[in-house]
Amino acid sequence: MAMQRVSGVRLNEINVPRLFLYHRALTALRDAGVNVVTSEALAEFCANDVTPTQIRKDLSQLGTWGRRGHGYEVSGLLEMLARLLGLDQDWRIAIVGFGYLGHALATFLSYREERFRIAALFDRAPDVVGQRWKDLTVRHVDDLEGALREQGGVDIAVLAVPAKAAQDVADRVVAAGVGAILNFVPVALHLPRRVFARNIDLAGELSILTHHLTGPE
Amino acid sequence: MAMQRVSGVRLNEINVPRLFLYHRALTALRDAGVNVVTSEALAEFCANDVTPTQIRKDLSQLGTWGRRGHGYEVSGLLEMLARLLGLDQDWRIAIVGFGYLGHALATFLSYREERFRIAALFDRAPDVVGQRWKDLTVRHVDDLEGALREQGGVDIAVLAVPAKAAQDVADRVVAAGVGAILNFVPVALHLPRRVFARNIDLAGELSILTHHLTGPE
Repeated sequence: MAMQRVSGVRLNEINVPRLFLYHRALTALRDAGVNVVTSEALAEFCANDVTPTQIRKDLSQLGTWGRRGHGYEVSGLLEMLARLLGLDQDWRIAIVGFGYLGHALATFLSYREERFRIAALFDRAPDVVGQRWKDLTVRHVDDLEGALREQGGVDIAVLAVPAKAAQDVADRVVAAGVGAILNFVPVALHLPRRVFARNIDLAGELSILTHHLTGPE
Repeated sequence: MAMQRVSGVRLNEINVPRLFLYHRALTALRDAGVNVVTSEALAEFCANDVTPTQIRKDLSQLGTWGRRGHGYEVSGLLEMLARLLGLDQDWRIAIVGFGYLGHALATFLSYREERFRIAALFDRAPDVVGQRWKDLTVRHVDDLEGALREQGGVDIAVLAVPAKAAQDVADRVVAAGVGAILNFVPVALHLPRRVFARNIDLAGELSILTHHLTGPE
């Protein structure tokens, strides 16, 4: 496998989820003891959500070519993708809003994704503030700035608060130095340019399904 | 406002989330008593996640033009978007996996989105099966087929089960006639062509953020 350094590559956003798919599939393959994989086998492992051609195209854009009739070296490819995706380092995450959704996210991330470390939890409800979760205590959202300072700051804030609180919380985590936001609140946030956000819009996702179910055929 | 019938329009998938954003913004505007809105005001209401130019382009593709210096009629636009998104009718949803995430989704949808009706809940854990949630009882996932038949079927299944159970559950909801799946399980599902699925990949979303935080500038 030929491979060049890819630092400096800035992928357009559309491809990143696909690279993450490859990263996840390759991790599973590596853990299963596979050393080399063809684009066909990798596509099959991604449940054919991508074609072998797409995989070869994506990877060649990153300066990586499989050897014909041989395939890609799993560990090298994994290392490159991890570096590109920022998954070769730990990230500190604050979850603001520790209801069912916040709890689900914390549990999910702590079990599955070792690079994402839950560093702080916030809520406003009296029966939630003070709860223990693993080695953390849920803090009152009014103490957000102080608590984040104590923790040495976080990289990413996950917002799972009621809609009316979302912009205020966003402003405060941004002021506290957070660089990226994963927003589950169905509210369009006004954010400074330096802060990168992803919105996960559950009803919006469902509307994509219902649009297709309604489709004119 | 000029408006043509848009039945028969099949939007490419990339635009649907944006149309849903407009739909949500217009719903809020209508509820606030606004009858007419310019593309500039609508963009502002979407927190400038879209530009006025993009809005005008999207809407003109649907055969809708605002009147210069006047804007779009809110109720007509809302009606058209609702029809296109399938939000002018009710949809029956089964949630499979009623842990924190399943619970969060049920709560969220039932409070916010009246068109999405939670029709059935499933889990496998003995302490969850039999729980009441609103007027539903959580059923054992082993009874999925029978329970869905009793309920008269559902349109959409939301999967929030452990990874190792995901494909089996997907096969079974598909066999039971579900036409669309919202999949929160980080597993690539093998599905027949007629079934449309959206995957919400939490770790994948975070990796988009970490890719940007890592970025080479």
